[in-house]
Amino acid sequence: MANTTGQVIKCKAAVAWEAGKPLVIEEVEVAPPQDMEVRIKILFTSLCHTDVYFWEAKGQTPVFPRIFGHEAGGFSINGKPIYNFVGCSTFSEYTVVHVGCLAKINPEAPLDKVCILSCGISTGLGAALNVAKPKKGSTVAVFGLGAVGLAACEGARLSGASRIIGVDLNANRFDEAKKFGCTEFVNPKDHTKPVQEVIAEMTDGGVDRSIECTGSIQAMISAFECVHDGWGVAVLVGVPNKDDAFKTHPMNLLNERTLKGTFFGNYKPRSDLPSVVEMYMNKELELEKFITHEVPFADINKAFDIMLKGEGLRCIIRME
Amino acid sequence: MANTTGQVIKCKAAVAWEAGKPLVIEEVEVAPPQDMEVRIKILFTSLCHTDVYFWEAKGQTPVFPRIFGHEAGGFSINGKPIYNFVGCSTFSEYTVVHVGCLAKINPEAPLDKVCILSCGISTGLGAALNVAKPKKGSTVAVFGLGAVGLAACEGARLSGASRIIGVDLNANRFDEAKKFGCTEFVNPKDHTKPVQEVIAEMTDGGVDRSIECTGSIQAMISAFECVHDGWGVAVLVGVPNKDDAFKTHPMNLLNERTLKGTFFGNYKPRSDLPSVVEMYMNKELELEKFITHEVPFADINKAFDIMLKGEGLRCIIRME
Repeated sequence: MANTTGQVIKCKAAVAWEAGKPLVIEEVEVAPPQDMEVRIKILFTSLCHTDVYFWEAKGQTPVFPRIFGHEAGGFSINGKPIYNFVGCSTFSEYTVVHVGCLAKINPEAPLDKVCILSCGISTGLGAALNVAKPKKGSTVAVFGLGAVGLAACEGARLSGASRIIGVDLNANRFDEAKKFGCTEFVNPKDHTKPVQEVIAEMTDGGVDRSIECTGSIQAMISAFECVHDGWGVAVLVGVPNKDDAFKTHPMNLLNERTLKGTFFGNYKPRSDLPSVVEMYMNKELELEKFITHEVPFADINKAFDIMLKGEGLRCIIRME
Repeated sequence: MANTTGQVIKCKAAVAWEAGKPLVIEEVEVAPPQDMEVRIKILFTSLCHTDVYFWEAKGQTPVFPRIFGHEAGGFSINGKPIYNFVGCSTFSEYTVVHVGCLAKINPEAPLDKVCILSCGISTGLGAALNVAKPKKGSTVAVFGLGAVGLAACEGARLSGASRIIGVDLNANRFDEAKKFGCTEFVNPKDHTKPVQEVIAEMTDGGVDRSIECTGSIQAMISAFECVHDGWGVAVLVGVPNKDDAFKTHPMNLLNERTLKGTFFGNYKPRSDLPSVVEMYMNKELELEKFITHEVPFADINKAFDIMLKGEGLRCIIRME
């Protein structure tokens, strides 16, 4: 490639022109990086529910046209292996990001695998390992068995939890969840009483930790109310709707429960992501089981279809 | 006193016959202790807002006649110095409590001072020292400057907090609060905007820790929403009303705030109270400044009047 330093370059990007409408691959111009910015070439990216959330733009002020994507791995112009995160638009062959949004990872790491660590998987994993911190032998409930929830199960398993109770409205998810350490399954639809009461009965008063990965306000409340008083910790991960209100009786807090929320699993991307990549390289963390689909860039809308149907976990988008 | 082992004894106690009506000092019979129980002679007790709360019985299923009191110091029948806690009725010359509700403290400790550690003061102190755990140099907001809130200020001061912002609807309380380490004062009545916004402006985004000691649901919500995102921790201590709902937008949690509640400042009375008494004996903790009144047992209703008028902090009731 010719030296493009300081010049605008043209490349292909998947543009969302309207909320909820298929992306259109267009030629776009990518400005040269300014001070403290880097222009990077995207090699692999994956589709995360957050992309879909802002693309659907339900109950939001719509911001279009827009280029989505934030789970990506690329190589910078200067050839050093770098890792891309939010504050970016990775559904493009090239993008410009602030250096604060890049993490330098092990150059041996396969980008078609570790790109999924840029958001959802680290979010769930970190919610368990960094925030909920279940003790060895403890009981953990995970609400929502999508990619983030399964990553939370994986984190609970790595922490040594002995019971991991998966909660999902879709019974088909339990088989998949077993691969991630899930030992029991509760479908709220199978019970007439609130799921927090079902879980309290299963666990002699409540779980030690719970992790909410759905974004449903009712699941958030249930996740909080199903932890044991005296020591229980509930961690909220799912992104709520704009007008949701978290509501509980304050006595549930005075009984020495803790309620926390977390963003990106409490990882600082720039400084902490390389160590998560190392967990994969050391075979502690298995990423392959999260990757269920792969499509070429031209078929990016298929990745949206797969996620909307709830069919897979992560779909890798191969840029070239 | 004659040996009364195994016998019912008669003594005086202050009986609450009806919600909100003055107590009547009556002769009562105290049964002999059963297995794992101890009959103790009460020497000093103090009046805590929790007594008033259940005596007023607003919005509660009333349980009367009843003998209140739970902040007391006595000597047991067998002469060993012991310390009495909840699950008891200390507005009586003698009472019977389970051994699990007793703590053995330093026999040198003056019971007319340390009796106040049995509830409110330890609750506020422990909420700061054990639960909020402010770091040296941090900023702490304390909602409610009654005895529990001032004990929370004292705990924040002992932790090395450099700014302690007292929040109260009664401006007269600030002078008193300065003695407990309070450096700034906010009266929500002086502002048109919500107090959490006032505090966020004073502190460049929010306080590091907040401790809620009023029991008002609005104060609980403000105490949570005034902590800084990323690391802020709010601790709820005040006893809510039966029908209250704690309500906040879940995004306030996802921004990495933590919400906790605590009961008795996370102290285990039997094992931890003796060390709090030692803090007093070592002059780290000054209890005298909490004790504003003292009445003989015959005048116990005056202690209720003083608390209802919000005039003092703690009123000691001298039993003989």
